[in-house]
Amino acid sequence: MKLTVLGSSSALPTSERFSSAHVLNAHERLFLIDCGEGTQIQLRKNRIRFSRINHVFISHLHGDHIFGLYGLLSTLSLMGRKSPLRLYAPESYDSILLTHLKDFDIHLSYEIDFVPLKSKDPLIILDEKYLTVTSFPLKHRVQSFGFLFREKNRERNIIKGIIEELGIPVERIPAIKRGEDFLTPEGLVIKNNDLTMPPDKPLSYAYCSDTKYFPRLASFVKDVTMLYHESTFDKSKEDLAAMTFHSTTIDAARTALKANAGTLIIGHFSSRYKKIGPLVEEARTVFHRTFPAVDGRSYEITNAIIDY
Amino acid sequence: MKLTVLGSSSALPTSERFSSAHVLNAHERLFLIDCGEGTQIQLRKNRIRFSRINHVFISHLHGDHIFGLYGLLSTLSLMGRKSPLRLYAPESYDSILLTHLKDFDIHLSYEIDFVPLKSKDPLIILDEKYLTVTSFPLKHRVQSFGFLFREKNRERNIIKGIIEELGIPVERIPAIKRGEDFLTPEGLVIKNNDLTMPPDKPLSYAYCSDTKYFPRLASFVKDVTMLYHESTFDKSKEDLAAMTFHSTTIDAARTALKANAGTLIIGHFSSRYKKIGPLVEEARTVFHRTFPAVDGRSYEITNAIIDY
Repeated sequence: MKLTVLGSSSALPTSERFSSAHVLNAHERLFLIDCGEGTQIQLRKNRIRFSRINHVFISHLHGDHIFGLYGLLSTLSLMGRKSPLRLYAPESYDSILLTHLKDFDIHLSYEIDFVPLKSKDPLIILDEKYLTVTSFPLKHRVQSFGFLFREKNRERNIIKGIIEELGIPVERIPAIKRGEDFLTPEGLVIKNNDLTMPPDKPLSYAYCSDTKYFPRLASFVKDVTMLYHESTFDKSKEDLAAMTFHSTTIDAARTALKANAGTLIIGHFSSRYKKIGPLVEEARTVFHRTFPAVDGRSYEITNAIIDY
Repeated sequence: MKLTVLGSSSALPTSERFSSAHVLNAHERLFLIDCGEGTQIQLRKNRIRFSRINHVFISHLHGDHIFGLYGLLSTLSLMGRKSPLRLYAPESYDSILLTHLKDFDIHLSYEIDFVPLKSKDPLIILDEKYLTVTSFPLKHRVQSFGFLFREKNRERNIIKGIIEELGIPVERIPAIKRGEDFLTPEGLVIKNNDLTMPPDKPLSYAYCSDTKYFPRLASFVKDVTMLYHESTFDKSKEDLAAMTFHSTTIDAARTALKANAGTLIIGHFSSRYKKIGPLVEEARTVFHRTFPAVDGRSYEITNAIIDY
C-alpha cells in the first residue's frame, strides 16, 4: 500500500500547498480521498492515470475538500470514461451534485454510483477481495467522516525451501497459504505449522480530516499502520482549534499514541505556517513516529520502520 | 496596462497549463477575466494580491472558465474581505451561485454585486475614470461573451519646456492637457496647438474566448492594441473546431488581421499540443505579430513594438 499526498493545505491553499487530496494505492487499486481545488492538476503532475480511479471518498462538504471534484468529473467525461465512478460523500451531496450537473448542462459519459455517508458509527462501506473500507464519524462544524482502509487477513508465508524439499505441487500452494496441511504421495500428513509462518500483519491506512480531538476517535483507528490526522494548528492555538473544530499537533499525536498507530502523518496545515518542521517536532514530543504531509510525496505503508 | 496569463489550457488542464484565467492591470486596477480551476493558486504563485481584485468577468459557463470561482470566493471571505466584489457573468449564473452558497452553507464576508451579461450587441458594462469595459457576444455552444477594456481618451502631451518658457501656473496645466488655450498675464492667447502635442493612442485589450470564427467579431475589437483570441486547435483541425464552436490558429489570426490589432496573443490550447511553437508559427503566416499565452507570463500592452 502506498499513499500519495496531493494537497496538504487547509482552507487557504498556498503557493506550495494545494487543498486536501490523497491517493491511496492498495493492491494496485487507486482510491482518491478528498478532492480539493486543483486535484486534477496534481494528479497530472504526479503522473497518476485518471482512468485508474474508480472510488472517490469525500470527508465533508467544505470547499477545500471538494471544490476540485466538479473539474475532475468533467475531465473524466471529456476523456470518454465509460465505467461507473463510485462516489462516497455526506448524503446531502447527492442532490447538490445533480443540481450542479443540471445548472451547467453537463452530461457525463459515465454513471456516478453515489454512496451516501450518514452512519454515526463505524460502517463498512466497501468490501473487496483484498480490502475493506470503513467510514467513521469525526467531530467538525459540519458532518464529517474519516475513512479506514484495511487489508483483509493476509495468507500465511510458506517457509523458504520447503516446496522444493517436499516436492509440493504448485496447485496445492494456495490451500497451504490459507492454512491447510499437506498430504505427501506416501500418505504422510505434514502439519501446516511445519510448512508456513504466520502471515504478515494486515496493512491499514486511516484518514482523519477535519475534526476536533475526541477520545473515541482512537478506537476507530486502533492499531492502524499509518494514520493521517489533520493538524491545522500548533499547540499554542488550541483555543482557535477548539473554536473551529480543528486539531493541533498535540491532538493528532495523542490520537496516534492512543490508537497505537505505526506512523502518523500530519497535514491540513494552516496557511500561516511557512515552515512545517516545528509542527512535526511538536507532535513528536507526544508521538515519535510523526512525519509531515508534503504535496507530491509518496509514503510506503508498511509494518517496517521507515523514515518518510 | 499589463496582462498576466494565469492559465492557457482549454477544457483539460495539463501539468504545464492551468485552465483559463487572465489578470489585466489597468492603471493599477486589477481585473480578473475568467476563473478556471486553480486560479487562486496561480494568483498566489504570481504574487497578485487578492484584495486588489474588485471585478471578475466570466465569459461563459463552462467549467474550465469558472470552476476556480467557488474556491476564490470562499478564500476572499476567509481573508475577511469587506468591500463588494463586482461579478460579471451570463445572467443564469446569478441563481446558480446563490444555490451553491446555500448548499454549502457559505456566508461570505462581503457582498457580490452581480452584473448579468445578456446583450446581443456590444454594451458598456463598466465606465470608470480611466477606462471602459464593453461586453460583446461570441459564438459558442453556450452563451459566451468577450470583453474589451479600453482606456478613455488620453490627455494631450504638453510640449517639453513650454511651461517654464511661458511661466504657465501649475493650476492651469490640467485644462491645457484637456485642450484649452492659455491666456498670458499680458492678455495674449496662446493656442493649445502651440502648447501641446496630440495624446498617445489609448491602449486597449480584448479577450475572446471561447468562440468559432465569425466575421463580425473583428468589428467588435477594431484597432485593439492587444487581442487575446482562443486557438484551441491547429489549422488541420478546422472541422473539429467548427463542430465544437472553437477557433483554429488561422481563425484567430484572421480576426486579428481584420481588426487591425496591434498584437495577437493566442491561448486556450488543446491538451493534445505538447509544444505551442508550431501553433504560433501557423498563426504568423496570417498575422505576423502573434505570441503565445504562457502561464505566469506578463505582457505589457503598449503601442510600441515589443516581442513577448
